Amino acid sequence: MKTPLMETIPNFSEGRNLENVEKIVDAFRGKPGVRLLDYSSNPNHNRSVVTAVGDPQALGDAVLEAIGTALSLIDMTKHEGQHPRMGAVDVVPFVPVQGCTIADADALARSVAERASKQHGLPIFLYEKSATNSERTDLAKIRKGQFEGMPQKLLDPFWKPDYGPASVHPTGGVTAIGARMPLIAFNVNLSTASKEIADRIARQVRNISGGFHFVKAIGIYLEDRGIAQVSMNLTDYSHTAIYRALELIRMEAKRWGVTILGSEIVGLVPLQALLQSAEYYLQLENFQPGQVLETAIWSDDGDESAAMQGRSDSK
Amino acid sequence: MKTPLMETIPNFSEGRNLENVEKIVDAFRGKPGVRLLDYSSNPNHNRSVVTAVGDPQALGDAVLEAIGTALSLIDMTKHEGQHPRMGAVDVVPFVPVQGCTIADADALARSVAERASKQHGLPIFLYEKSATNSERTDLAKIRKGQFEGMPQKLLDPFWKPDYGPASVHPTGGVTAIGARMPLIAFNVNLSTASKEIADRIARQVRNISGGFHFVKAIGIYLEDRGIAQVSMNLTDYSHTAIYRALELIRMEAKRWGVTILGSEIVGLVPLQALLQSAEYYLQLENFQPGQVLETAIWSDDGDESAAMQGRSDSK
Repeated sequence: MKTPLMETIPNFSEGRNLENVEKIVDAFRGKPGVRLLDYSSNPNHNRSVVTAVGDPQALGDAVLEAIGTALSLIDMTKHEGQHPRMGAVDVVPFVPVQGCTIADADALARSVAERASKQHGLPIFLYEKSATNSERTDLAKIRKGQFEGMPQKLLDPFWKPDYGPASVHPTGGVTAIGARMPLIAFNVNLSTASKEIADRIARQVRNISGGFHFVKAIGIYLEDRGIAQVSMNLTDYSHTAIYRALELIRMEAKRWGVTILGSEIVGLVPLQALLQSAEYYLQLENFQPGQVLETAIWSDDGDESAAMQGRSDSK
Repeated sequence: MKTPLMETIPNFSEGRNLENVEKIVDAFRGKPGVRLLDYSSNPNHNRSVVTAVGDPQALGDAVLEAIGTALSLIDMTKHEGQHPRMGAVDVVPFVPVQGCTIADADALARSVAERASKQHGLPIFLYEKSATNSERTDLAKIRKGQFEGMPQKLLDPFWKPDYGPASVHPTGGVTAIGARMPLIAFNVNLSTASKEIADRIARQVRNISGGFHFVKAIGIYLEDRGIAQVSMNLTDYSHTAIYRALELIRMEAKRWGVTILGSEIVGLVPLQALLQSAEYYLQLENFQPGQVLETAIWSDDGDESAAMQGRSDSK
């Protein structure tokens, strides 16, 4: 087994006072077993997004510290920004990256939610894969009404938080915590300038209008290239693979005599999601992730018995 | 930049006295910067193959130690086995795995060859990418005549070794050392029982009969499945990609109304070789290896600025 690595991408409602952002981010610095990968602040959104990975336990502790710092520094009664938000710590996803499962991420989300609610009297909703009912899966539904509407919303028994009191934290509002699979931002460029065709194809591929369960998609027009694009978020590549979305788009595009010019992955993508596609297109039989040389080297199992046939320089 | 990692797969002419094999393999154990991945002995071949990776300098030192141990334990005048061989240390390839190039592997091969020849009076041929002329690229040509024929062979000025004396080591014979790219053992299964069709396709895809430069291929018949297979070694995936070999086979098979049932990779495969195929089939534009989540985490550049757009939980 590999060292378990969890990822978290907490969103904080502070994107202008960068001194305070640094104080929040400090929770992920210099901690054994925790690695800060990225953070960025958007002044228009008045929001910062942090990305860190690490040992689940150590990462949970760091998140808990960051939540405490954020609650002490951010006053939501004075917060304004273009991005929807309901709390100082708006949302904390936990994402299994390596050697751990979505169930491990869910357990960590619940543990952090319980501790944060107790320490700070913070109401917390479990969302995505941790959601306790289907209405709470979608963050947008939980956040509807935003910070200003939360006091009223929490009065409704249907919206009793999963942890903490049924009333907002005076300056910190409400937080959503949950496990989710890594998002993959995957865009497919079409040999047409018609946004309408891209829109039609997007509707065929996305969950909400009858397509694949874990695909969100819209059609857009790329001014600089004069072409249309199907822009997607793949929310669980383990159930809806990249190649499957691509091939469905190819199939539907044929109806219009449109072909695929290319595609792009924006930002990071889990290795496994690309291996799935290589395995599909190469029609590999009995392929094991442990056959990937880098994976074999990086694994921590101390096992010397990697499958090495065919590489003996005998030929 | 990532930590440079080199791989070596030395072949030793001892596959029966496992106590001696352990002594040779010990050179790769407990060394900082060196990791033993695998070793196996074949009594029929009377030969053992070791796989280790590590920091190039540390790996070179370990190989040098293993050469010394092997020369002290193996007497080639008494060696018999089914596998062609010319020395106690028959062949030592160095393979760039990560953060280093084939030129680095070549430099390491030459450095180890020079030191081993000086320490042990061992004649050494540089082979594969390190070869000093085209006749020495192919290990089989260097090894022709085997241990017993080497004293005579080395009398020919054309076969003057690259390092060490122009005479065999009395008990250790002759060694080949060189840089090569990782071998990929890639087999493609056909929807036909005809070995002849597999043979014809193999000839079209392999270098020796007009195909791709870095492909070796034969047709074989799989008794257990009743189908024919094109069995390949891809000797440099950076110039002849897996998908290109597969698609050429698909194209040629069409001529016979034959389709591809599946394929298999035997043993290890470099991550980059699979990413190439994912990139090709997904038609990815501007894809960077640093976008692979695991790669981003494992890299040692201490850079927090991984491309994280599209993963902010904003949607």
